[in-house]
Amino acid sequence: MNHIFSDRISDVPKSFLREILKTTVNEDVISFAGGLPNRDLFPIEEIKKASVKVLDEFGGDALQYSTSEGYLELRKWISNRYASKMGLSVNPDNILITTGSQQGLDLIGKTLINESEHVAIEEPGYLGAIQAFSLYRPRFLAIPLHFDGLDLETLRSTFQSYTVKLIYGVPNFQNPSGLSHSDENRDEVAKIVSNSKTILVEDDPYGELQFQGEKRRSYFSRIPDQTILLGSFSKIFAPSLRIGWMVAPDRLMEKLIIAKQASDLHTNYFGQRILFQYLLDNDLDLHITKIREKYLKQKDAMVSAIEKYFPKEIKYSNPDGGMFLWAILPEQISSRAVFDLAIKEKVAFVPGDPFYINRTNANTMRLNFSCVDEETIETGIERLGKIISDFIR
Amino acid sequence: MNHIFSDRISDVPKSFLREILKTTVNEDVISFAGGLPNRDLFPIEEIKKASVKVLDEFGGDALQYSTSEGYLELRKWISNRYASKMGLSVNPDNILITTGSQQGLDLIGKTLINESEHVAIEEPGYLGAIQAFSLYRPRFLAIPLHFDGLDLETLRSTFQSYTVKLIYGVPNFQNPSGLSHSDENRDEVAKIVSNSKTILVEDDPYGELQFQGEKRRSYFSRIPDQTILLGSFSKIFAPSLRIGWMVAPDRLMEKLIIAKQASDLHTNYFGQRILFQYLLDNDLDLHITKIREKYLKQKDAMVSAIEKYFPKEIKYSNPDGGMFLWAILPEQISSRAVFDLAIKEKVAFVPGDPFYINRTNANTMRLNFSCVDEETIETGIERLGKIISDFIR
Repeated sequence: MNHIFSDRISDVPKSFLREILKTTVNEDVISFAGGLPNRDLFPIEEIKKASVKVLDEFGGDALQYSTSEGYLELRKWISNRYASKMGLSVNPDNILITTGSQQGLDLIGKTLINESEHVAIEEPGYLGAIQAFSLYRPRFLAIPLHFDGLDLETLRSTFQSYTVKLIYGVPNFQNPSGLSHSDENRDEVAKIVSNSKTILVEDDPYGELQFQGEKRRSYFSRIPDQTILLGSFSKIFAPSLRIGWMVAPDRLMEKLIIAKQASDLHTNYFGQRILFQYLLDNDLDLHITKIREKYLKQKDAMVSAIEKYFPKEIKYSNPDGGMFLWAILPEQISSRAVFDLAIKEKVAFVPGDPFYINRTNANTMRLNFSCVDEETIETGIERLGKIISDFIR
Repeated sequence: MNHIFSDRISDVPKSFLREILKTTVNEDVISFAGGLPNRDLFPIEEIKKASVKVLDEFGGDALQYSTSEGYLELRKWISNRYASKMGLSVNPDNILITTGSQQGLDLIGKTLINESEHVAIEEPGYLGAIQAFSLYRPRFLAIPLHFDGLDLETLRSTFQSYTVKLIYGVPNFQNPSGLSHSDENRDEVAKIVSNSKTILVEDDPYGELQFQGEKRRSYFSRIPDQTILLGSFSKIFAPSLRIGWMVAPDRLMEKLIIAKQASDLHTNYFGQRILFQYLLDNDLDLHITKIREKYLKQKDAMVSAIEKYFPKEIKYSNPDGGMFLWAILPEQISSRAVFDLAIKEKVAFVPGDPFYINRTNANTMRLNFSCVDEETIETGIERLGKIISDFIR
């Protein structure tokens, strides 16, 4: 049977990451390849209490179909948190609960992207966004990401040459690089975007996980009418419930809700109720502090080990938050070749290739520090350092 | 800002149903307009026990990210149930867990439908399918649904005139009509489809809710290589967890999984674990028997009341299962006009219009019986009967 598939599905890059992760499930392998939050920090007992309470007090209501917009009380809670933590005024009507941030990306693609329209994306960029948007067949324009943010020269020339429908980025502690856009960089990016009709997608799953450095102001606070802001409970509560949200301007909400309804009617409502009960009965900030402290220790352990064991030519990010660190090998070295050796020595990471629109044998590597204890981090980085040293000499 | 939206989102019919349901939330209104399972039958205590057990025994694992395919043990359970209940051999690798059946429809659209390809759909048809597929901009071809199944003459001529990419139907106790395809009708439909390269989407959320009549064999058992079979736990367990599944042939699975991953990474895994624990520790068949007995009583109450209070000209379905009954007014009468009067008399139903591709002032009405007790059903149907009698005289 020919042509059974839609053209759009053929455009989606196969998840090379998925294949890599399969090779790293072996228990002997020290894996910096994952992208998971540390499961030791999940509030298991508190979630148990919240589940019981929701069923005792609300019973059938928590198990019935619900609204596509998401649980209003939860949307109000998110609105209040934006006000208290970031000084942002967000109406609960401008918040849509999504099945993880990933669904936010799909809804944006569905609602906004026509085939062949231009989508600018930071590079390296988040693979899940490339996948989600690919289904709507845009032309991607890569904007290089540096240690302080987007490459402004490329951004300016891109906006001069093309009508950019969307620009996508993870400005805080990005996956894969751990890099952030500086406030100065954001000022310039916002200025360029505000001179266009482009929508900026500010994907912020890691913003709450800042463990050092100065707080940076969101794009949403700079250009609210041109920003869609995505948030997630996956990294500060638990990922398996698949609860995220999007904040969007009035003029976009109605269509986003229609797209949401067509996609899965609504997000798992029992989970929304459990989460809201948890937020009522517990101090989320205290919980987040624990996560930050743990991840800071893990990040510090990785940075120290890199200083000790990696050859001096290797550049790397020292992230202020999040779960990832980015290492840059000398230009001629393919991190895939390093990966092949590393896996034999039972240490894994993600080679940079999948995080670029169109590049193979990139010289970059993503190192996740949130799932490995400090001692094992040192052992793993020592192994990696030896492989890299051998490789480049 | 002009042209901000994608063309595809402009094609999605606004949910007229959503608007109708808003007018019926008033507590005074006897509503046959809903489409919800009866919340009194949700196994609240059992779900509570399952939630606690999952967290006690599996803790962090149940709260972590998981695989896009869905929980393997749950997929095996579904496979076993197909074997034991329907004599069907389905490999767990051909089962994909979805965020409700609704997501199954979205994934089918994403993976299979190119713009302007033809999708045949029974008429009246399930609104959620029309919405989900609309996003992928097919041309819909309506196949009239009669009391015994699809109109075969229209089906044959449609397959002769067009290359039909997909044909969609709910062959058991359909929403909105409560009608089923007879075994003879299925034989003929399967024959026509098997002479083409068309994929038949067999959406079966109500199959387990059969309370009378003979069991009919699935399309999947007739033409497995051309069928995608959708199932759901929403009507036999609880809808708020948003857990459904799809069964698809080998050649489609890889692309469906890629589409799934791009859409929301995976379905709420905590919910999958709770559901599986519930299935391990409880007798689902016993639970389903209770639902069937309750719905049968409600259906019988509605049929008796219709016999008593509706004018004799009104035709109606007497469904063997599910949650809906379909009434057909004399041809010149618009059920929307009847609705406007009914809502003033505090009784509601869904006028037929939204269930057709392109029709206004249809003479049909959807009556839901699963959420109203028998006594109230009689009162509501009495009111409706009076309105209809006045209207047609």
